[in-house]
Amino acid sequence: MKHIRINQSRLWDTLMDMAKIGATKKGGNCRLAATREDKNGRDLFVKWAEQASCSIEIDEIGNIFARRSGKNNALPTIMMGSHLDTQPTGGKFDGVLGVLAGLEVLRTLNDNNVTTNNPIEVVCWTNEEGSRFPPAMMGSGVFVGEFPLKEIMAKEDNHGLKLGDELNKIGYAGNPLKNKQNILAYFELHIEQGPILENKKKTIGVVTGAQGQRWHEINVVGQESHAGPTPMSLRRDALFAASKIVTEVNKIGFKYNPLACATVGCLDIFPNSRNVIPGRAFLTTDLRHPDNKTLLKMDDDLKNFCDGLQNNKEFNISVKDIWYSPPVTFDRNCIDSVRNGARALNYSFCDIVSGAGHDAVYMSRVAPTAMIFIQCEGGISHNEIENATIEDCSAGANVLLYSILDVMDKF
Amino acid sequence: MKHIRINQSRLWDTLMDMAKIGATKKGGNCRLAATREDKNGRDLFVKWAEQASCSIEIDEIGNIFARRSGKNNALPTIMMGSHLDTQPTGGKFDGVLGVLAGLEVLRTLNDNNVTTNNPIEVVCWTNEEGSRFPPAMMGSGVFVGEFPLKEIMAKEDNHGLKLGDELNKIGYAGNPLKNKQNILAYFELHIEQGPILENKKKTIGVVTGAQGQRWHEINVVGQESHAGPTPMSLRRDALFAASKIVTEVNKIGFKYNPLACATVGCLDIFPNSRNVIPGRAFLTTDLRHPDNKTLLKMDDDLKNFCDGLQNNKEFNISVKDIWYSPPVTFDRNCIDSVRNGARALNYSFCDIVSGAGHDAVYMSRVAPTAMIFIQCEGGISHNEIENATIEDCSAGANVLLYSILDVMDKF
Repeated sequence: MKHIRINQSRLWDTLMDMAKIGATKKGGNCRLAATREDKNGRDLFVKWAEQASCSIEIDEIGNIFARRSGKNNALPTIMMGSHLDTQPTGGKFDGVLGVLAGLEVLRTLNDNNVTTNNPIEVVCWTNEEGSRFPPAMMGSGVFVGEFPLKEIMAKEDNHGLKLGDELNKIGYAGNPLKNKQNILAYFELHIEQGPILENKKKTIGVVTGAQGQRWHEINVVGQESHAGPTPMSLRRDALFAASKIVTEVNKIGFKYNPLACATVGCLDIFPNSRNVIPGRAFLTTDLRHPDNKTLLKMDDDLKNFCDGLQNNKEFNISVKDIWYSPPVTFDRNCIDSVRNGARALNYSFCDIVSGAGHDAVYMSRVAPTAMIFIQCEGGISHNEIENATIEDCSAGANVLLYSILDVMDKF
Repeated sequence: MKHIRINQSRLWDTLMDMAKIGATKKGGNCRLAATREDKNGRDLFVKWAEQASCSIEIDEIGNIFARRSGKNNALPTIMMGSHLDTQPTGGKFDGVLGVLAGLEVLRTLNDNNVTTNNPIEVVCWTNEEGSRFPPAMMGSGVFVGEFPLKEIMAKEDNHGLKLGDELNKIGYAGNPLKNKQNILAYFELHIEQGPILENKKKTIGVVTGAQGQRWHEINVVGQESHAGPTPMSLRRDALFAASKIVTEVNKIGFKYNPLACATVGCLDIFPNSRNVIPGRAFLTTDLRHPDNKTLLKMDDDLKNFCDGLQNNKEFNISVKDIWYSPPVTFDRNCIDSVRNGARALNYSFCDIVSGAGHDAVYMSRVAPTAMIFIQCEGGISHNEIENATIEDCSAGANVLLYSILDVMDKF
């Protein structure tokens, strides 16, 4: 059965049809969660899934489960999925590929008259991006019990509109949450959103887990003063101190190479005026590593550096922990199925750790899980120019198909 | 005649009365140029000047000249002055002291029935701060011919209101510009706006000139990408590069110590998001030195560094010159008069170079000029907590009085 292949051009056409909904001028997509565009995208997916003989279930947070029956529907379900919502200036592949490749796998099974033992579901998770309603990975987070449903339904966008009301408005606030206990495995195909596969010239990334993350907010207080009349030796320039922190954060990233990532993403200085020495600076740091002990060392390094920087009393520096997400290791059997698939299908492949968060990270708490990555051009994502080739999308979908068949044999 | 002294408490009361106009809750002042508050401040000054038997002249840009006749009014005029407009959250002394100490000098001459040979004028320059209508030092700049009158009158504030109309509205668009050829000397008393005098425990700063300034705008273009999936070695983090520039700018400041100042006042990064590696950064630099050759070396150092930083092609860095103001050396005779005054009156004093721009910098182009600095608490200015002591204000005014009498003897 594992010799069957997905239909490359059908998958591509399906991706391009979906990309017409919320299309942006620069060739990207804007389908923010629970908007009219999101509704239109969901409706199209539901129509396609029904045409592929799936039954549709929608839960209270709007997750869509398109179910293809197996020989024995009492057996645990195999799930594939991702999300259809995008960033405000997002691309055509981030999330969408995982959902529509899942659909393509079902269509291919139909074409080949394959009835699997277990039922299979393609899931479309609500609001993975978190752009309109933070936090991210909301639908999968609620599904696995990370977020309380009620709290999430009350989240507001910038205009004060509540997620619950908005889901209702588009007709996607469904029935009580599904049982999450009876899942055989979960697979998610996704573009890498980084440059590693492209750099290594590998088609398939066998995703073994996800980096742990530690986020901080740092406030530096110095002394605002005139850029002209204040001698260098008497300055307490908060930006000068902040720059040292930026340099140190990068140093930490390189120190724990090659798996560490360390980033200052936000920096605001006050008063931000040409001829005033900055008196205050606000920074955010994002430290990542797949190994928890190393991540903690990186955290220590950062805090020790900031302590040292204020020890001379020139500056008051506070480092606040604002988020911690422990590293995730995916299921060994599921990972093996992905690797077996890449090998059997003659795709070049390598192991890779996901740097970004994905619905699969939450799903790994309730089911054996793995992910499949394919290249995206230049590693660029969350951008209208986000791109992936038809061959790579097809390769990813073939590995997805192989994996669900392989894992079904194992369990 | 040089034995006479100003009236300390009258000067202080006058300062405090003026500070009631546009008073802010935190004890500062908001008298933006050509507003109702500015009008009220000007009206009060004019009333006081007329009570001191001055004649009032107002020129087209709204500069106010309060003139006290001399024995021979054909002789060149001695001028003292500064400005009454403030920053939006400014203090009670910046500018105001120079105008009201000038008035106090005239009142003291009246008290002592002194008639000087030359006529004396106290000038209140329009819009020195440039907060509502950039650029700064507008009134003195138009007076000396740095800015064309017509162009300046058409400058608009944030609401699109024109300076010319606003001056008209408050009744301070006056007669054609005065003759600037017949000025014996110009003296300006001002708070230091820096910490040097306080640090050296000196009462009087004998201002020998003003630093030259070179301003730049720097744009750094790297590559925006995901903070998670992008390995350190493949990043083109524009903030990392910008931080190196900030560090280098400070290094340049220290390299040409003690007279150099080097500041990055503005820094904006894009997209300024916690988990995105910054793709672009915008910085402004402000380099200052009293010696033009050294200032040019500082400029070269900065540009060479930025060139080197982009040579590895990771970054595209552009450094744009946006302003150059050459160093100013004040008139030797006028400086000597200030120094003689400080010495004769038994005030501790030291030479100092002005780091900030002042109306005196423009006036030095058309008349022998010098400035007198006094301490401001903590070096803090352009701030509602700006503060100066009654004793220091009085000392500065006494040196101002001495200086105009001294310089009159010389020429």
